[in-house]
Amino acid sequence: MKKRHTEISEKVIDRLPKYYRVLGELLASGVKKISSKEISEMLGFTASQVRQDLSNFGGFGQQGYGYETEVLMDEIKKILGLGREFSLIIVGAGKIGRALAAYEGFASEGFKIKAMFDKSADKENGILGIDSIEKYLAENKIDIAVMTVEKEAAAELAKRLFAAGVKNFWNFAPAELSVPGAIVENTNMSESLFKLGYRVNANLNNNPKEGI
Amino acid sequence: MKKRHTEISEKVIDRLPKYYRVLGELLASGVKKISSKEISEMLGFTASQVRQDLSNFGGFGQQGYGYETEVLMDEIKKILGLGREFSLIIVGAGKIGRALAAYEGFASEGFKIKAMFDKSADKENGILGIDSIEKYLAENKIDIAVMTVEKEAAAELAKRLFAAGVKNFWNFAPAELSVPGAIVENTNMSESLFKLGYRVNANLNNNPKEGI
Repeated sequence: MKKRHTEISEKVIDRLPKYYRVLGELLASGVKKISSKEISEMLGFTASQVRQDLSNFGGFGQQGYGYETEVLMDEIKKILGLGREFSLIIVGAGKIGRALAAYEGFASEGFKIKAMFDKSADKENGILGIDSIEKYLAENKIDIAVMTVEKEAAAELAKRLFAAGVKNFWNFAPAELSVPGAIVENTNMSESLFKLGYRVNANLNNNPKEGI
Repeated sequence: MKKRHTEISEKVIDRLPKYYRVLGELLASGVKKISSKEISEMLGFTASQVRQDLSNFGGFGQQGYGYETEVLMDEIKKILGLGREFSLIIVGAGKIGRALAAYEGFASEGFKIKAMFDKSADKENGILGIDSIEKYLAENKIDIAVMTVEKEAAAELAKRLFAAGVKNFWNFAPAELSVPGAIVENTNMSESLFKLGYRVNANLNNNPKEGI
């Protein structure tokens, strides 16, 4: 029996975008059928992990036959909500904000960046002043605000945006952002690097002859 | 009894940088002692999760007393390998590469960016040509290569760097990078956004009156 999507665990949700990406690559290379073993080898999960994850979404896999690449991809796409369009604004026009604005692969998946805001407007580069944000939000429905401001400013600004109607935040400021009632995805660049540092360090400690 | 660090699970390692950051913020505000409950409230984990995680590193917490902020932070710093210095190069001088090069908080934690490479050299902006990378690596010990090239180029280039002595990679190309024998941390910007999309979508489906 199919589980309701709301019951799917956070860990499965973490892995769904990876399945989605790999299936897209397979489809682009003309692969019409794929086994859980092959998916697992592409992602570094075990085959039984893959089977267990995908069983959350009903019975489109068959023992000894595998999955239809396109059917599985479409189903994951629906679950991820990628069928619809999301409107985004970027708040903070520093290097991270500008890099995200230029990042390929957001728009093609329905995440459309509508405007960028900063402390002071910069019309030449299409950057609006933060003072005009309430007016902008009254006239434009925005689903997600991407917060690329300094951590000192992030919480206060997010509260202001929430009051003006933005209910979802993607936060890059290096401090966990929490806005009561809002959905927040925190992405901390340093944390990824620290995790890598941990593994590099543990590896060096186990192989001291390599030095650093 | 203290567990060997190599036995600590991936999930605990995922949370360590968050503890480290929160403890740094507490220390900066002059907080000398902290309970697992207070830490849990700052991070959104349960208090028992915090106690369980921190118990991996021995007995510096006491029931009804809490943790010494500085002692705990120092211990986590050691475990994360943040006491030492890592040398980094950025491979790919696009917007993401340049944003990372300018990101604060890496250098202060010992992650020093030594050089940036791209297909064609750009001396004015301090960007070296990729053709010179083997020569550079023969003369400079580099711990981590940050891969911010297109996904078509990432795997081939990483293999080349690995042969030239780079054993650790932080990959931003939107395809899982795997280099046999190397340590790889994959950071996919789209995946974070997709996860947010999933939650926004699930929320809208549960509250259809809000529309989109």
